[in-house]
Amino acid sequence: MLPQDTIVALATPSGAGAIAVIRVSGKDAVTLVAPLFRSVSGKDLVKQKTHTIHLGHIIDEERTLDEVLVSIFNGPNSYTGENVIEISCHGSPYIQQQIIQLLLRKGCRMADAGEFTLRAFLNGKLDLSQAEAVADLIASDNEASHQIAMQQMRGGFSNEIKHLRDELLNFASLIELELDFAEEDVEFADRSQFKELLARIQHVLKRLIDSFAVGNVIKNGIPVAIVGEPNVGKSTLLNALLNEERAIVSDIAGTTRDTIEDEIAIGGIGFRFIDTAGIRDTKDVVESIGIQKTFEKIEQAQVVVLLFSAKEFLANSSQFQIEIEKIKNKYPQKPLIIVANKIDQVNEAEISNLRLQIPQVLLLSAKTGQGVETLQHQLLDLVNTGALRNNETIVTNTRHYDALLKALEEVEKVQYGLDSGISGDLLAIDIRQALYHFGEITGEITSDDLLGNIFANFCIGK
Amino acid sequence: MLPQDTIVALATPSGAGAIAVIRVSGKDAVTLVAPLFRSVSGKDLVKQKTHTIHLGHIIDEERTLDEVLVSIFNGPNSYTGENVIEISCHGSPYIQQQIIQLLLRKGCRMADAGEFTLRAFLNGKLDLSQAEAVADLIASDNEASHQIAMQQMRGGFSNEIKHLRDELLNFASLIELELDFAEEDVEFADRSQFKELLARIQHVLKRLIDSFAVGNVIKNGIPVAIVGEPNVGKSTLLNALLNEERAIVSDIAGTTRDTIEDEIAIGGIGFRFIDTAGIRDTKDVVESIGIQKTFEKIEQAQVVVLLFSAKEFLANSSQFQIEIEKIKNKYPQKPLIIVANKIDQVNEAEISNLRLQIPQVLLLSAKTGQGVETLQHQLLDLVNTGALRNNETIVTNTRHYDALLKALEEVEKVQYGLDSGISGDLLAIDIRQALYHFGEITGEITSDDLLGNIFANFCIGK
Repeated sequence: MLPQDTIVALATPSGAGAIAVIRVSGKDAVTLVAPLFRSVSGKDLVKQKTHTIHLGHIIDEERTLDEVLVSIFNGPNSYTGENVIEISCHGSPYIQQQIIQLLLRKGCRMADAGEFTLRAFLNGKLDLSQAEAVADLIASDNEASHQIAMQQMRGGFSNEIKHLRDELLNFASLIELELDFAEEDVEFADRSQFKELLARIQHVLKRLIDSFAVGNVIKNGIPVAIVGEPNVGKSTLLNALLNEERAIVSDIAGTTRDTIEDEIAIGGIGFRFIDTAGIRDTKDVVESIGIQKTFEKIEQAQVVVLLFSAKEFLANSSQFQIEIEKIKNKYPQKPLIIVANKIDQVNEAEISNLRLQIPQVLLLSAKTGQGVETLQHQLLDLVNTGALRNNETIVTNTRHYDALLKALEEVEKVQYGLDSGISGDLLAIDIRQALYHFGEITGEITSDDLLGNIFANFCIGK
Repeated sequence: MLPQDTIVALATPSGAGAIAVIRVSGKDAVTLVAPLFRSVSGKDLVKQKTHTIHLGHIIDEERTLDEVLVSIFNGPNSYTGENVIEISCHGSPYIQQQIIQLLLRKGCRMADAGEFTLRAFLNGKLDLSQAEAVADLIASDNEASHQIAMQQMRGGFSNEIKHLRDELLNFASLIELELDFAEEDVEFADRSQFKELLARIQHVLKRLIDSFAVGNVIKNGIPVAIVGEPNVGKSTLLNALLNEERAIVSDIAGTTRDTIEDEIAIGGIGFRFIDTAGIRDTKDVVESIGIQKTFEKIEQAQVVVLLFSAKEFLANSSQFQIEIEKIKNKYPQKPLIIVANKIDQVNEAEISNLRLQIPQVLLLSAKTGQGVETLQHQLLDLVNTGALRNNETIVTNTRHYDALLKALEEVEKVQYGLDSGISGDLLAIDIRQALYHFGEITGEITSDDLLGNIFANFCIGK
């Protein structure tokens, strides 16, 4: 059942700006807005072509609410697939409110979160994973997450899933056809071809499932633990990393994030810096609790940066060496970058000494910027973004990940059944189950609950 | 000299939303955007009609930045009068930034605050007072200020000024013509008609100048001093006033203002409530400083609301009576509303007693809502909005007010000169001066400094 009512919402961020856009969608969108709009040219809105823009005024009885531009999109050639009107008004919250209230009085309903995109899905303009990518796209704040969302929105992921599903469906049909001719003992489905297909499906599923680890950190930022005492220059370093990036981006008003704190995009990849205390040996109970916490945070991180002041290291090198060894022993798999900060405060001889003691040390001065670029390169190199660079599909959505895991499980059952020669009817059941999980991803299989959950995370107006 | 370069800015509020609009204006707007846009239908943007919308992707080299709608407005039929492209993209700050950066790299320049409207003015799409009204319209947050800005933007004020200017200009020409025929002693300009015109102009100017007092309070909110001890229920009263209004407006997500505090719109008029302590007699030095401050705040207010608890009044009636008298004596011209709050806590007999002691008292319970509506009516009645109701032009802009004062001064000089029979050449000078000040309002007379000052107050993207 497709929705019959007409919904309205503010589509642009709330607050004052030059303009704001109010979006109206539904069967009656045009006929509902037309009587409230007085075109400057005197034309009737209802008779205008799709994808055209009209200048005029929004009139509430005899009161002029605003001079606006009205854009017309006739379904199915619109975002939702329904008739859509976009009213571009002056960006005053008061005017936005007045126009929306007028539309509500005239029969529109306030749109729920994500309802425009839900309607696009229901009208077949997007599949479910594409709809989900719309929300990811809006939330993306660096190149990597933007690229993944964009690829998913444009149907890359869906196509891959649909392709597998179609092939599997084809085989399922043949197997089920065999059941109709069970007594004649024919084999429509070539078993060796089928095995080959199953192997291929498993391969693709495993690749997609594996990509989730990468996708997840890219979406949420790669966690980096910075281990270091408060005075070793952590925040100066973060600022330096940030400024290095800032120098690349031009200073556009309004694009600066208010709180940068510990999230920084380097080379288009988001990094989440987790601050931790040092872990030098101590007998102090309070401090050892701190060490425990440091370890906990290192657990969560994908990369560890051990930061100390060059001068301080030279004064207590044995203590620091113990710290380095501790981390290496405890987390042999975790990439460790050892950074000696404040090298502007030590002389050549001290630097040589430092290099001798820790051969892989990265010499850096957050203050002068020396070494900051090297650190950025090292961080980027440590992140496995091979898949990203090769434009492969990366899974970032937990729901998709779960469905893929379940699909793989079913495909493995089919494989096993085939190997052990179980009967066609049992095989068919497992194949149907696998198909079900594929369908969950793209939305061929949905429930109201599922749709409700997905679209509740959207903003209103999308 | 009209500007030749192409400017770009985000036109919608910054932050995340469903969509964002990036505006590009200039001679080369279309040819600049066209190569970056890959239309879904394969059409070339350059060849498309004005006021049409096109679906496609913004492409940076081979990287797809976003799926967008591009609207085309060919000059002079656009907001700025130049060629304008509006790119409606997904509302992610990252995407907005990426697209704007791409446009900057391809030859656009970041727009200054108000530069789109400045260009609209330079291209004759708006006069200066209309351009100023655009900023007022965006800032308007209640019906009255919205209505004034709307009227001014639609040219109401400009027309009135232009009309006077044209008539005066006509007479100026005749007077100047007489100078050319000075030796023949002819009178092209009918002196009695001229006097009549001057009287009419003075009348209109005085009305406009007088309207500034009303316009100013409407624009900034009418200041109301609430005199009352902290525990008399001031904030409950403000909430009650607000809720009364809220009940009328439906609760649209995103339209609620974060900090309401002391500014409330009642019946479409903004009121600014100024909190003050009480002013009962005291010997205490510290308290008498407080009283001094209370008086200062009453000075700034247009209306005084004296708020006390009904029970407390009855317990200390003589003290309160002194307070009432003090305010009345000190500010005989200032409307005073005496409100007895918390009448839900007193009985019938006490209410009668209260009424006996202060006949004009307004009985109210902020808690139950009783009397709140009466207070709203009294506040609205006290505001002289006759001009507003009659749809007359109201001046809200200090710059206009100054120019009107100067124009009046010059017109009075002309009047005086005419009465005392000064020579035509001296008369002509004064008339030219008056015309100059009229021209300042609508922008026939401008300087770069003046334009700079005006448009610097706009937001970027407008």
